[in-house]
Amino acid sequence: GLRVANEVKGVEKVIINDVNADALEIASESAKINNLENFEISEDETCRFLSSHSRKNSRASIVDIDPFGSPSRYIDCAIRATMHGGMLALTATDLQVLHGLFNKAAKRRYYGTPIKTEFSNEIAIRLIIGCVSFVAGRLDISFQPLFVDHDMHYYRTYLKILNTPDQEENIGYIIFCRNCKDRYSHTSRLTKCRKCNHETEIAGPLWIGKLFEKEFVSQMKNIRKELTVHKRCERILDRSEEEADMPATYYTLDEIASKMNSAPLKLSDAISKITSSGFKASTTSLNPSGFRTDCEIDEIIKIFSAK
Amino acid sequence: GLRVANEVKGVEKVIINDVNADALEIASESAKINNLENFEISEDETCRFLSSHSRKNSRASIVDIDPFGSPSRYIDCAIRATMHGGMLALTATDLQVLHGLFNKAAKRRYYGTPIKTEFSNEIAIRLIIGCVSFVAGRLDISFQPLFVDHDMHYYRTYLKILNTPDQEENIGYIIFCRNCKDRYSHTSRLTKCRKCNHETEIAGPLWIGKLFEKEFVSQMKNIRKELTVHKRCERILDRSEEEADMPATYYTLDEIASKMNSAPLKLSDAISKITSSGFKASTTSLNPSGFRTDCEIDEIIKIFSAK
Repeated sequence: GLRVANEVKGVEKVIINDVNADALEIASESAKINNLENFEISEDETCRFLSSHSRKNSRASIVDIDPFGSPSRYIDCAIRATMHGGMLALTATDLQVLHGLFNKAAKRRYYGTPIKTEFSNEIAIRLIIGCVSFVAGRLDISFQPLFVDHDMHYYRTYLKILNTPDQEENIGYIIFCRNCKDRYSHTSRLTKCRKCNHETEIAGPLWIGKLFEKEFVSQMKNIRKELTVHKRCERILDRSEEEADMPATYYTLDEIASKMNSAPLKLSDAISKITSSGFKASTTSLNPSGFRTDCEIDEIIKIFSAK
Repeated sequence: GLRVANEVKGVEKVIINDVNADALEIASESAKINNLENFEISEDETCRFLSSHSRKNSRASIVDIDPFGSPSRYIDCAIRATMHGGMLALTATDLQVLHGLFNKAAKRRYYGTPIKTEFSNEIAIRLIIGCVSFVAGRLDISFQPLFVDHDMHYYRTYLKILNTPDQEENIGYIIFCRNCKDRYSHTSRLTKCRKCNHETEIAGPLWIGKLFEKEFVSQMKNIRKELTVHKRCERILDRSEEEADMPATYYTLDEIASKMNSAPLKLSDAISKITSSGFKASTTSLNPSGFRTDCEIDEIIKIFSAK
């Protein structure tokens, strides 16, 4: 919050709310040291604070929810406090729930359940956005994911809020076959593998729409020229732009190598092999050795096996 | 609200909130005429009004949501404004959505879809309570339905709110076979009829727990001695008490008669036939010619056919 008030141009006002008076004290001190005048603090229960900004002309252009654990219980109030066209950012740190250790809690918090896979972080992010979709639908609000981000201990999603009911159905399931490693998103719970007829594992209901808005990511890339940006961030932005229009779920090189009983390919080789066979393929910001493709598992193996 | 302030003993204060200033004006006038001093009006957006009463010691013992159409968008705020052990009452008048005319809207508002049946009103009520369960779970709140009520153009549910996470799983589906008329609630979507192997129709996810708390209904019956109660209300209370512990879904006499190609039985005869065969059976407040039973459809027909 302090950094936004200090570093982002054109910010009229930042209000930081917390129930912890000590944290607010520290924020106030820092604001003073930095001579910030566009900065306020508020000590209130989160939803009451957000509700005090739910009136049409008092809504925020950016609402950023960063709680201990799950943001799930704040979603309604956060949506109501975000203006039409504004951005809602949500951070989740309840990784055990989102990774499938406590499916009852996942269902209660996110209205869907994960499965344990190599691409669990994508499922986690899609569960969070799926929950937003359930809540927003009830409030006749729609949204578009702009960007998602993750690190060791958190997931973060950035959504553009629109005060119009949703026209599209972006809720569905991720179908995964642990036997043949096939994976894809679908609007129905398909319990038999389309490749090997094995029983599938199913995550969801969750968000199966896009995670990135290409135009937004490209604007982020443009701005980086004016800033000092870490190499790692540059790579994340490049990959996010590349994968923006690709299908849900990714594969990892290790997984496929182990399935093929061979050494993993280099990521760039894997992608060029797939694309030169006429399929789409891209890296993913969610995993350094992951790739997205519209090519299905049996075909991937055929392509990777070819000399 | 005015009647509660005027007629219910021990009511400290009633606050009526509306966005319509004219309606509030009329309420104020009526309060004056009735010399009510325990009565306030508030002109605010519903959720902001409710949020101003979400602090622990400012919550209400009864929150009554009576909007145009669906109460769905107010559920989170209404729960937060209800004290531990207090009662949340919700009225819904969006009958077309709840009866299966607009399933997309039903899913968006209530997180489940209805099916068109003879017992559509029960499905509607269970969809409303199911939605409350989804919202409450996310807020780590649980509840018990105390009573449900319906008339021509509305459904009303009365729930006891508890500030403890839910221990029980009361969300599931109603499975209905249009071919053999079998119906029951289940935690899974069972797509084949257990009786005739026909494809089933499935409503939900929705609330499959109890709709009535017997003790609460019995207390309502006790109070009626002090009041002038309409015959129709007396009958509703009697039937609600009777059906409180019975299974979800009811049958109607007409339905079974048409299936059997015979004239419908008298309700009392139908029930005594079933109970004297060793099954449970009761009337239902939801339908004058409906009955609940733990006896399944093939057995019901056998019993009704017996001379």
